[in-house]
Amino acid sequence: MVELMKAIKLDYTNDSPQMSWENVPYPHPTAEGQVLIRVKAAGVNRPDILQRDRQYEPPADASPILGLEVAGVVEQVFGESQWRPGDEVCALTHGGGYAEYVWVDERHCLPKPEGWSFVEAASLPETYFTVWFNVFMQGELGRRGAETLLVHAGASGIGVAGIQMAKALGHRVIITARKEAQLNICKDIGADAAVLLDDDWVTQVKALRGSVQVVLDMLGEKTYPGNIQVLGKEGRLVWIAFLTGAKVSVTIPQMMEKQIRLTSSFLRPQSFDVKAKIAAGLREHIWPQISAGKIKPVIEKTFPIQDVQQAHAWLEKGGHVGKIVLTV
Amino acid sequence: MVELMKAIKLDYTNDSPQMSWENVPYPHPTAEGQVLIRVKAAGVNRPDILQRDRQYEPPADASPILGLEVAGVVEQVFGESQWRPGDEVCALTHGGGYAEYVWVDERHCLPKPEGWSFVEAASLPETYFTVWFNVFMQGELGRRGAETLLVHAGASGIGVAGIQMAKALGHRVIITARKEAQLNICKDIGADAAVLLDDDWVTQVKALRGSVQVVLDMLGEKTYPGNIQVLGKEGRLVWIAFLTGAKVSVTIPQMMEKQIRLTSSFLRPQSFDVKAKIAAGLREHIWPQISAGKIKPVIEKTFPIQDVQQAHAWLEKGGHVGKIVLTV
Repeated sequence: MVELMKAIKLDYTNDSPQMSWENVPYPHPTAEGQVLIRVKAAGVNRPDILQRDRQYEPPADASPILGLEVAGVVEQVFGESQWRPGDEVCALTHGGGYAEYVWVDERHCLPKPEGWSFVEAASLPETYFTVWFNVFMQGELGRRGAETLLVHAGASGIGVAGIQMAKALGHRVIITARKEAQLNICKDIGADAAVLLDDDWVTQVKALRGSVQVVLDMLGEKTYPGNIQVLGKEGRLVWIAFLTGAKVSVTIPQMMEKQIRLTSSFLRPQSFDVKAKIAAGLREHIWPQISAGKIKPVIEKTFPIQDVQQAHAWLEKGGHVGKIVLTV
Repeated sequence: MVELMKAIKLDYTNDSPQMSWENVPYPHPTAEGQVLIRVKAAGVNRPDILQRDRQYEPPADASPILGLEVAGVVEQVFGESQWRPGDEVCALTHGGGYAEYVWVDERHCLPKPEGWSFVEAASLPETYFTVWFNVFMQGELGRRGAETLLVHAGASGIGVAGIQMAKALGHRVIITARKEAQLNICKDIGADAAVLLDDDWVTQVKALRGSVQVVLDMLGEKTYPGNIQVLGKEGRLVWIAFLTGAKVSVTIPQMMEKQIRLTSSFLRPQSFDVKAKIAAGLREHIWPQISAGKIKPVIEKTFPIQDVQQAHAWLEKGGHVGKIVLTV
């Protein structure tokens, strides 16, 4: 007899993909050093929507179930582990978060912050891993002491994480957003300045700081010329997506003049070791800031996991601030 | 009475700039920590030609006299110094190398390698500082042990330095060149493989190694699409010039897929501290390789400094291998 659990199943028989909470086989570990988490909350991320729409093929060894981050209780450990059954954690998953149970690499778990709910803790892994990897490891924010970070789409999940982490570590943060309402919210979260992403944003950023050292960009084509203008000497431009277009025209001498570095990466295909390194960096540098109360959760809205279809629609319509989280 | 020395003077009264060996005021130090070098030999570099043709404006605090590298004898020290009068050195200058005497930052001097002539030593600083800074410091060749470096224009001064330094430190090197004759010369210098820069170079490089970790590129537009194809995961593309065109069309997801990093820089505008750091890196990692006989000088041709016009013409016609050096 096959043991079962509930998880979100994808059905492609209609025109648009349907998601429903159904029985699926209970999951098994794929390697030692994994822990089974009983999921209490699962974060919703843009890649979930791409995968749902078959625009993104998950890695071959990943769970076919959606869901890149969870918070919950350790149910079981397989092999050596720093965790014990009963520990409350949040974790980056290798897929499979939209479920009652998921096995994850024990090094990709972090303690649920004290005083935070499971919903709040589930809002952290995907954006915090992404920002730590891109802004701090690739973009080296802070390599010369306090620097200035520009974050586009400051009200998005990633944007909020960027503001929070950079501010907690003593940097200055300027954000851009498309809607007036988002500007004040980002300032409330901690951004030093917030600029409307209109034709005038470059002038405004320059008026504020002269130049910035790191730009975190998910817009691509449209913001590229401005990014190069606002970046100062030895500036780093970090792409994590390209929502306005994938192609940019780079003028080499312009880059050489300021010694600008262009980097980009996807978090998901990184090796387990790299993800473990990211988790270790977060635990060392960011988790103490959370414990000290310098970082507060920013949740846009929660949905029971059975209403995942509405949760996705909420993300797709845009205009949100912070994370959308599913409760199990 | 003004003390005088000889140096190359530029005259723009005719259509093309004229250079002649004439009396100019004896130079004075601009800060403590400088040493006066009696120049025995001065290297010729492409930026000299740009500056001669007024296509490149030197930094405001630099000597207006051409010449970015010299070898010679320390004549005088101003302030604290590791050098004493009589020491034989080669040095990166802040301009002013085409002269009998030049003051340089004492940290930008390196000992003349034992058994090397002044001409040979004068061939090192500009290319070795450039390659160390770009390939090793920016491009981080070797950050994961032995890697593969692709060098375009392998027979140029920079190309030869790239081959020599990367090979001496245990890396694999593939070069490209435009002429058949240059391929074998580059292999004699130490390149593991040499590929003609024709329509087929990408296929050939892939057939040789599958992928490379670092590309040192001075060609820009024409080689960009191929560079992205041959770079492997976490590959680094380093631009130091753009001889075939300054504009490249970058496709962000292509970069994200392999997590490619694009960097570029000019050596000249770097701060004195950065140049001192480069010199320290060379002294620690490369000078012992020179002493061990793993690096041999590669000199295309020498000219008496009075014949600088011919020396420049020799560089401009192309097809050379290694450095052109002026003797004083």
